[in-house]
Amino acid sequence: MSELNLSRNTIHFAEPLPLQSGAILPNYDLVIETYGKLNAAKSNAVLICHALNASHHVAGPNPDNTSDIGWWDNMVGPGKPVNTDHFFVIGVNNLGSCFGSTGPMSINPATNTFYGADFPVITVEDWVNTQARLADKLGIRRFAAVMGGSLGGMQAIAWAIHFPKRIGHCIAVASTPKLSAQNIAFNEVARNAILSDPDFHGGNYYAHGVVPKSGLRLARMVGHITYLSDDDMAKKFGRELQRSAGASPEYRFSFDVEFEVESYLRHQGEKFSTYFDANTYLLITRALDYFDPARRSEGSLSRALAEVQAKFLVISFVTDWRFPPNRSREIVEALLVNKSTVTYAEIDAPHGHDAFLLDDARYHNLIRSYFQAMDEAKV
Amino acid sequence: MSELNLSRNTIHFAEPLPLQSGAILPNYDLVIETYGKLNAAKSNAVLICHALNASHHVAGPNPDNTSDIGWWDNMVGPGKPVNTDHFFVIGVNNLGSCFGSTGPMSINPATNTFYGADFPVITVEDWVNTQARLADKLGIRRFAAVMGGSLGGMQAIAWAIHFPKRIGHCIAVASTPKLSAQNIAFNEVARNAILSDPDFHGGNYYAHGVVPKSGLRLARMVGHITYLSDDDMAKKFGRELQRSAGASPEYRFSFDVEFEVESYLRHQGEKFSTYFDANTYLLITRALDYFDPARRSEGSLSRALAEVQAKFLVISFVTDWRFPPNRSREIVEALLVNKSTVTYAEIDAPHGHDAFLLDDARYHNLIRSYFQAMDEAKV
Repeated sequence: MSELNLSRNTIHFAEPLPLQSGAILPNYDLVIETYGKLNAAKSNAVLICHALNASHHVAGPNPDNTSDIGWWDNMVGPGKPVNTDHFFVIGVNNLGSCFGSTGPMSINPATNTFYGADFPVITVEDWVNTQARLADKLGIRRFAAVMGGSLGGMQAIAWAIHFPKRIGHCIAVASTPKLSAQNIAFNEVARNAILSDPDFHGGNYYAHGVVPKSGLRLARMVGHITYLSDDDMAKKFGRELQRSAGASPEYRFSFDVEFEVESYLRHQGEKFSTYFDANTYLLITRALDYFDPARRSEGSLSRALAEVQAKFLVISFVTDWRFPPNRSREIVEALLVNKSTVTYAEIDAPHGHDAFLLDDARYHNLIRSYFQAMDEAKV
Repeated sequence: MSELNLSRNTIHFAEPLPLQSGAILPNYDLVIETYGKLNAAKSNAVLICHALNASHHVAGPNPDNTSDIGWWDNMVGPGKPVNTDHFFVIGVNNLGSCFGSTGPMSINPATNTFYGADFPVITVEDWVNTQARLADKLGIRRFAAVMGGSLGGMQAIAWAIHFPKRIGHCIAVASTPKLSAQNIAFNEVARNAILSDPDFHGGNYYAHGVVPKSGLRLARMVGHITYLSDDDMAKKFGRELQRSAGASPEYRFSFDVEFEVESYLRHQGEKFSTYFDANTYLLITRALDYFDPARRSEGSLSRALAEVQAKFLVISFVTDWRFPPNRSREIVEALLVNKSTVTYAEIDAPHGHDAFLLDDARYHNLIRSYFQAMDEAKV
């Protein structure tokens, strides 16, 4: 076969979900997309976990809007590095997100109105629990691999820790075992931009018919700076002035858009504010902040990873200053202390944190070979 | 003598000031502080230029509030690296600032109300012009040195370029010959936070009796992250939870302050929003963006520096990721192309960009020796 075989489903979970915070979600939906075919042994399933602003829509054209191509389409599909001719790939929209799974924009059955600010704080471990329940529903006892970049990589790591028998390979790209103080600080600025937007209304803006757009714009702008490398920004924009053809190349001496990079950032912020939910932004950045598996073992990551059975593939990018290579090396070193199996690559790509989403031959060939080896070993 | 001999004055300039933007300021005041004594030959004057949020109040206790110690008090004073027993030091509050010199909070003689958003955009070169006029008033034909950190260093460089005969030594610490795209991007986020605050009222908030505090807070928070090194933040805060003694060390699962670094940032933002003016923040960040002396010589910094006669002392800090050492090296290399005299030091201080304000023995001893040599040479 050589078709993507995209299928989208909303799956309802009627069983209450106890969360790490102590709250209990009475029931919930998860939206998923699948690609390829689950084999008879149900042994070829790969779970793809998404990062901050993505969704279940990993590959191919969106059935509702064919110009909307999946966020990891260069990675997943027939003949792609994660080859859907051989693997059955599942993309799942995380709980708390704003793309169809239950989240702040959903109706709270206890109040018959939007959850809004009442939606409970969610952790990476909560997501992994919902994903395990999803696997149960699909009859998948064990994933061939769980895979993600950035926050998606954290979910893959949490899978290896909490469901050691249910994951063959853990693939964590551009990830970290926990946020640094600087990472948390940037998240805090973004959250404060949203929280202090008068249109936020304490998280219940849906009822007011408004959206805290200016907070969302700022949150995205500051986030976006951390996704790109300094060099990449310099190459893309430098100090070029934003000018239409033939316009004066002189400074305009104003606070309007003057440099290309300003125009780009404003555009990114504006675009984001039209499709992303502010409460979801708060929730997901907080899940990032809280992720710290070593916390339960007095800061020892190797002890936190002591029970993992998955083989690891860890990949970092040299110019990623959000989760730089030394953060990935912490994971690798902890695994080596435990004599776990780990493959590690540091890719000299110029695109900063965003590199995990981009098509780099060295990176893609590595993933391709890794999955080929996995397929041949019939793991 | 061994007294600081602090003297504060407001100096009025009745002559109109043509600005780089083409606007003309009809008249203006500059607030200055001086320390030490001007010698008979008027050859021992040192001009200290301030960065974003500082002022004329460089050293010693503020006469109006003795607990307010000058921002570079560890550097300037009797027996300090810039020794006021030998040098006559001048701190000047820049035009457009909010600490007494004419700026957006001043009355516009054309309208008899606050300048507000009508205050013209100011450049580093405009500041240097006002400082040269100040020198004229004080009868100082030539400064022994012009010195500053960060944006202050840019002013020192502009002095060397535009008044080559009037400056003996140019001392630029933690500076850069121009902002990078990433630097501009961070400024743009900060400005957008202010511009999108509903209390900004297009810059005319004075008339509304409000202050765009939430914009200022966000601007300061994002700025502050760039002043500290990642390592320094990790050492200062790590992932410590903000807890009173005896409180539970567990996560609270909320968007309120959870980590120490959040508390610190919010505190810095809040403090800043009580004393700094939003229009001034816009003006000063724009002056940073626009500084680019090589622009007038087709991007060649060595050509921009071709006429300098000053000897340079350039200092950078290894952990400064705002204006990292490679930015200072650009200055040094351009000077070496011209066979100008330059001393360069890269200090392995852990405190990021803020290191230029802190007391590091290697850094201070270097400045001390440099000024002693300058004094003995009777430059």
